[in-house]
Amino acid sequence: MDTIKSIGYPIYFSDSLGQLANFIKQSKYSRFFILTDENTGKHCLPLLNEKLAGMENFDLIEINAGEESKDIDFCIGVWKMLIDFGADRQSLMINLGGGVVSDLGGFAASTFKRGIDFVHVPTTLLSQVDASVGGKTGIDIDSIKNIIGTFTQPKAVFIEYDFLKTLPARQILSGLAEMLKHGLICDSGYWSLLKASDLKKPAPELVYYSVEIKNKVVIEDPKEMGIRKSLNFGHTVGHAVETYSLLNDGGKALSHGEAVAIGMICESFLSHKKAGLSADELEEIVNVISGLYPKYSISEDIFAELYTYMQKDKKNQNGKINCTLLTQIGQYSIDHVCTEDELYESLKYYTKIQYATFR
Amino acid sequence: MDTIKSIGYPIYFSDSLGQLANFIKQSKYSRFFILTDENTGKHCLPLLNEKLAGMENFDLIEINAGEESKDIDFCIGVWKMLIDFGADRQSLMINLGGGVVSDLGGFAASTFKRGIDFVHVPTTLLSQVDASVGGKTGIDIDSIKNIIGTFTQPKAVFIEYDFLKTLPARQILSGLAEMLKHGLICDSGYWSLLKASDLKKPAPELVYYSVEIKNKVVIEDPKEMGIRKSLNFGHTVGHAVETYSLLNDGGKALSHGEAVAIGMICESFLSHKKAGLSADELEEIVNVISGLYPKYSISEDIFAELYTYMQKDKKNQNGKINCTLLTQIGQYSIDHVCTEDELYESLKYYTKIQYATFR
Repeated sequence: MDTIKSIGYPIYFSDSLGQLANFIKQSKYSRFFILTDENTGKHCLPLLNEKLAGMENFDLIEINAGEESKDIDFCIGVWKMLIDFGADRQSLMINLGGGVVSDLGGFAASTFKRGIDFVHVPTTLLSQVDASVGGKTGIDIDSIKNIIGTFTQPKAVFIEYDFLKTLPARQILSGLAEMLKHGLICDSGYWSLLKASDLKKPAPELVYYSVEIKNKVVIEDPKEMGIRKSLNFGHTVGHAVETYSLLNDGGKALSHGEAVAIGMICESFLSHKKAGLSADELEEIVNVISGLYPKYSISEDIFAELYTYMQKDKKNQNGKINCTLLTQIGQYSIDHVCTEDELYESLKYYTKIQYATFR
Repeated sequence: MDTIKSIGYPIYFSDSLGQLANFIKQSKYSRFFILTDENTGKHCLPLLNEKLAGMENFDLIEINAGEESKDIDFCIGVWKMLIDFGADRQSLMINLGGGVVSDLGGFAASTFKRGIDFVHVPTTLLSQVDASVGGKTGIDIDSIKNIIGTFTQPKAVFIEYDFLKTLPARQILSGLAEMLKHGLICDSGYWSLLKASDLKKPAPELVYYSVEIKNKVVIEDPKEMGIRKSLNFGHTVGHAVETYSLLNDGGKALSHGEAVAIGMICESFLSHKKAGLSADELEEIVNVISGLYPKYSISEDIFAELYTYMQKDKKNQNGKINCTLLTQIGQYSIDHVCTEDELYESLKYYTKIQYATFR
């Protein structure tokens, strides 16, 4: 697996932590700040420390694990720590963690003193195949995901497969949703490969292919003016369900991938209704997803609430809800305006699917 | 006075509000948000409304006048209003006001949904010759000025000279400090012209020349890697004094320009000590500034506090305080490390100058 070239920066796959140590040794940064959460601080930081042994000037900023840490209040906390530590413009931020760490750390760095450099060391499958590539940073306000952010590229990304080995199954499933999405929107061959693989433990090659697909998309359209919208498949409904769950389910909230899995079923239904996706392919998608993910109970009473979250989606224009749909497996189509009724119908469709397990 | 071309956007000087109306008519924005403060809302907005009569989709966001409004808490307020108003990515933010409005509005816009477009309609002399040009946005945390921000260019700047006619004398003086700085760092001819002019009411041409000088500097170095640091002359000490005054003087706090005027005297002294500025030119600078600005009382007891603010300056590297100095009038020299003792000496020099007026 070669190093992938993204927008002005490399994505390393082989001996990634060694590459990070080289990157730091060869750099001229004055100071280094490692942003972690309590989990990566425990499970991943020791491995990093081993590789960086003997190097100086590292300061640690630890946040709580979980989406709640992406709130603006926590971002202010990170900024204040950078101030207190005396971070200057020649400092480097090293984001060691999942998507929360890379989104928040990327945003905090890209705005601190009008921008300091940062690199990502993604430690979850989700952040390896999604958040770490593409230059999106973001934080939440009032639980509205990534409502504030920048497009700022990291200086490098270091993808260490070994970090995945200790991840709980639910975390693997969360990243898997984005991998399935990559196949569905762009690459039917990759979709077939995924179907035929052991998806409880995705092989390194599958991670690599996903990053390659995502990278191709974002290189063509860094600021989401066109093709990059393809990556939003499953996310219009998915983000709404995720926001709802985050506000209502406490410690049992859906993971990002679990919510996107629901979103992909709803938006595949809409794809069948509005964009030409065949009934067979709809069924195939539903079978794969419902075979992997537990069912989430969505009562009709909350459809209206979900709809208000969809209305706040960044992709909308003139208050209309804008979905990316599939014309077939491996082929997306952007800018489908979906009505309230259509979205409700898609949610009803989801609730009627037969699942092996219920949560 | 022609339109000045900046980094991908025009700066209009003639019939500027008419140009703004054209800009809006010809654009494809879905929504328009005007950010004002209570003063510009009263004095400038009516003029704008006249020009925009009959156009729709305008929403108003009003903040309190004053540097306090640049605090992150107010920025969150602006973001939340954009959310509540349902602003989408095709919205335009129109920053109608002084530097606080353009810095805050620019930052809020450049990060809302990862960036919406904005234009500046600067209403003070200071914002016309300084904040509106160059693509710096910024907000404050714990009274540390512009500690958070981005480099994002506006889509256009509309400089309306008529707005200056109703400004109080202190506001004119505040902008004048930056104009004097432009002469001192880059253009001895402009400095001589300023000396020979009625500076209580700077003519339109003087405003134009200042914008031209600033624009040349920022085009060459948008991200402040080299020559743009020239613009920091007077600002190392100036920002520290401004922060101190803001925290201690309540309603009587120094204006930005008043603080920079003090900074320019201190840093001219350092220029004489360390960078070859002649004693005669130092005296000339001190005479011009002390003839325009009231004296501010700086007791030796607060030198240490001022120094801690200087240590937090964005321009520093490795904890060392970095000043832009003059080798002669019209010629700057960047990256002079100044010691604590040298900075104290420059403050002492300031306190000993004979002024016409004391405040």
